[in-house]
Amino acid sequence: MLDEEQLAAIETHADRLLEEIGMEIRGDARAIELWRAAGADIDGGVRVRVPAGLAAQIIKRSAPAEFVQHARNPAHSVTIGGRATVFAPAYGPPFVSDLERGRRYGTIEDFRNFVKLTYLTPWLHHSGGTVCEPTDIPVNKRHLDMVYAHMSLSDKPFMGSVTTAERAADSIEMCRILFGAEFIDSHCVILGNVNVNSPLVLDGEASRVIRTYAAANQAPVCVPFILGGAMGPVTTAGGLAQCFAEAMFCVALAQLERPGCPVILGNFLSSISLKSGAPTFGTPEPALAYFAIGQLARRLGVALRCGGNLCASKVPDAQAAYESANSLWPAFLAGANFILHSAGWLEAGLVMSYEKFMMDAEQCGGFHVLGRGMSLDENAFALDAFREVGPGSHFLGCAHTLRNYETAFFNFDLSDNNSFEQWSQEGAHDIVWRANRKWKAMLASYQAPALDSAVREALEAFIVERKATMPDMNH
Amino acid sequence: MLDEEQLAAIETHADRLLEEIGMEIRGDARAIELWRAAGADIDGGVRVRVPAGLAAQIIKRSAPAEFVQHARNPAHSVTIGGRATVFAPAYGPPFVSDLERGRRYGTIEDFRNFVKLTYLTPWLHHSGGTVCEPTDIPVNKRHLDMVYAHMSLSDKPFMGSVTTAERAADSIEMCRILFGAEFIDSHCVILGNVNVNSPLVLDGEASRVIRTYAAANQAPVCVPFILGGAMGPVTTAGGLAQCFAEAMFCVALAQLERPGCPVILGNFLSSISLKSGAPTFGTPEPALAYFAIGQLARRLGVALRCGGNLCASKVPDAQAAYESANSLWPAFLAGANFILHSAGWLEAGLVMSYEKFMMDAEQCGGFHVLGRGMSLDENAFALDAFREVGPGSHFLGCAHTLRNYETAFFNFDLSDNNSFEQWSQEGAHDIVWRANRKWKAMLASYQAPALDSAVREALEAFIVERKATMPDMNH
Repeated sequence: MLDEEQLAAIETHADRLLEEIGMEIRGDARAIELWRAAGADIDGGVRVRVPAGLAAQIIKRSAPAEFVQHARNPAHSVTIGGRATVFAPAYGPPFVSDLERGRRYGTIEDFRNFVKLTYLTPWLHHSGGTVCEPTDIPVNKRHLDMVYAHMSLSDKPFMGSVTTAERAADSIEMCRILFGAEFIDSHCVILGNVNVNSPLVLDGEASRVIRTYAAANQAPVCVPFILGGAMGPVTTAGGLAQCFAEAMFCVALAQLERPGCPVILGNFLSSISLKSGAPTFGTPEPALAYFAIGQLARRLGVALRCGGNLCASKVPDAQAAYESANSLWPAFLAGANFILHSAGWLEAGLVMSYEKFMMDAEQCGGFHVLGRGMSLDENAFALDAFREVGPGSHFLGCAHTLRNYETAFFNFDLSDNNSFEQWSQEGAHDIVWRANRKWKAMLASYQAPALDSAVREALEAFIVERKATMPDMNH
Repeated sequence: MLDEEQLAAIETHADRLLEEIGMEIRGDARAIELWRAAGADIDGGVRVRVPAGLAAQIIKRSAPAEFVQHARNPAHSVTIGGRATVFAPAYGPPFVSDLERGRRYGTIEDFRNFVKLTYLTPWLHHSGGTVCEPTDIPVNKRHLDMVYAHMSLSDKPFMGSVTTAERAADSIEMCRILFGAEFIDSHCVILGNVNVNSPLVLDGEASRVIRTYAAANQAPVCVPFILGGAMGPVTTAGGLAQCFAEAMFCVALAQLERPGCPVILGNFLSSISLKSGAPTFGTPEPALAYFAIGQLARRLGVALRCGGNLCASKVPDAQAAYESANSLWPAFLAGANFILHSAGWLEAGLVMSYEKFMMDAEQCGGFHVLGRGMSLDENAFALDAFREVGPGSHFLGCAHTLRNYETAFFNFDLSDNNSFEQWSQEGAHDIVWRANRKWKAMLASYQAPALDSAVREALEAFIVERKATMPDMNH
């Protein structure tokens, strides 16, 4: 953990980047105008130089430290910010894979399957967004099917489209149908995950998407995507300062558009292979940055997105698991409030794996227990058990054990803890084989949560209508 | 992290166990006498009830907060305690396994191979002890061959025998030959890892082994071995208090035998499967206990052994990796000073795996970087790079990148970060395959560190002489 002086040094360097180098907003005159009005210096109509301290000041003035994202099932609404952590599945993979069928392009059927599996697992709080790309639907229409799948197949909170401002608006409009227009103007019901074009560029489409969510009082997640040595410097502190600067710039823009709107400060910082330039995950340098950004976000008073079960491995092997754990542990301990990519991510995010999804989700389950902490009441200290058992005996059948064993330990259902002999007799399978059986059994057991038929019809009518207004397009 | 009141509650409950229930020492009259003289109440000649606070008082009075374990190569001497962490390989497996030959009983050849691999990896500081059981040598003689392997094939620090006090004495005697009798009386050169017979029993042989190491001014590692629900209560706080009580009892005994001797407070706390009773690893409950015992050890002012790359999986798959990371992360962050079982452990410790050893060792390498923390100097903040690159470009060839890239990121050599296409062309191998090739290449490159021929001859003569004094035995 960094001390006051070290944190101030990072903040100072982030401010210097915003003040001296500045950010470019390419093609969004209103965003430029908002920054000019707030006191930034505008150069050439695109370069926004923000006086030191101004971005933090805008954020501290109006951004909520935590907020509730409402789900259509209130039991699944989540608090984002403060001491809470929300797990959401992987986002964006064009490919999917499973043990039998291997690696292939994702389809809307795969998309629906992952929404169903996320609905069924108790360890993911959030349905996520683009759990995989449904490549069998035209790019300009698939957001409607994706949002509808989250709304109809699950009752957990979810994310909307960010590929254009118009698609973001469609996503929000569907929320008006589902939740009511009045409700969503005063309650957060959808997130939009927006990437910065690092280094130091906010694309006009991205800034419009941020403003679209913010204007509707919904939460943009503002995420610099930095591979050290490519979109940022090769040294960790530099990438961290840049990441913090870029994220503050976007979070502040959201607050300028609609003061008080919910917002999440994001961070996606990773390293690259110095042999090939390929992105690498689970390395120690981003972990160090996670701990720092956790402290910085708390000082700023905003919710933080960071980490995930990230890996570069092509298969759900030990490499995938080590790398994933090396990303999730520091994210969780850094106090990340929203952990996207918590389940399924493989191959640097190109693949959503059914088996990895199951393994990762269960890992998130372990962190639920870790987050609750240790009970220190009289029952937990078990003095009665020691009095009953005494030295040299065992606790297997004692009263305290019988009273507590059912809730004592988190059970990793996919782990095999049997003897070598029993495991061999049962076929000597690894965890991927067990995960494969488990996801198929879960999908077979799936039952959709009830959805009011009038709402369903209105959503479907909206989708038909919107699709009719445009030809199929692949961008 | 626990607060003052919570830590005091654990200390109070540990003290209550020592005072009210007491520990039994079964068959070591001198250990009983040491406790009686120190103020404990002795019941029936075996039950030692220690007044609240006495164990901690004895420890605080004379135990060192940190000490140096000297290696025959001074560059490999390690500090144990304080802010340092020392990684040592797995300890005790009767079986070994590798990708081609599968699971089989360990031999002295396997033992020597793991000593060589540990010598060669830069990520393990310590040669460990019983890296696997050399089952092709009689039980009562194998300690001589094991200690000799550590002394002759490596120049890193190591551990000695603990199965009987006589074998512990042999181990120490060999250190007198290697380091000189005078040197070792004032310098720690060997550790002995001693298990408590939890709950609350210290076997007489174990207490004599503790005293043998302590009397020679060498460091006993005092380790309660508690599977919650079996050797301890099923609730975490109870197991933690017990573990702390038992470890304090042994650490204090070492200080009573020789005040000021180096010593390590150990902790091996895990959960069991509630379906089968089998031990489980990588579960969140022991992780919570690790964080607490780290704080307790620092309050007591002694070095802590805790954690490792522990797992229950039968194969080095994703289960093994997740479980291992879930053990190593909390141990490292809890501030464990000596992490035994850092590499190779498989199948609840029954198997030493060549491939898992390679993967784990590299994971330890990542923690070296994490432990060093993040540089926050001007070069790290890279303002010159931002000035050169500006918004919307990339850092791949900029001067700052060229100046820093070689040392920028920790390189996980066993990870494949290539594209799916390249990886497929190269055979679509998983990490276990790559680990298999790597350990064979490392063994092929091994060259023994030089050892003075007179010392070598004296060690060999000692072994021949000791072996001649006893018949082969299997216990």
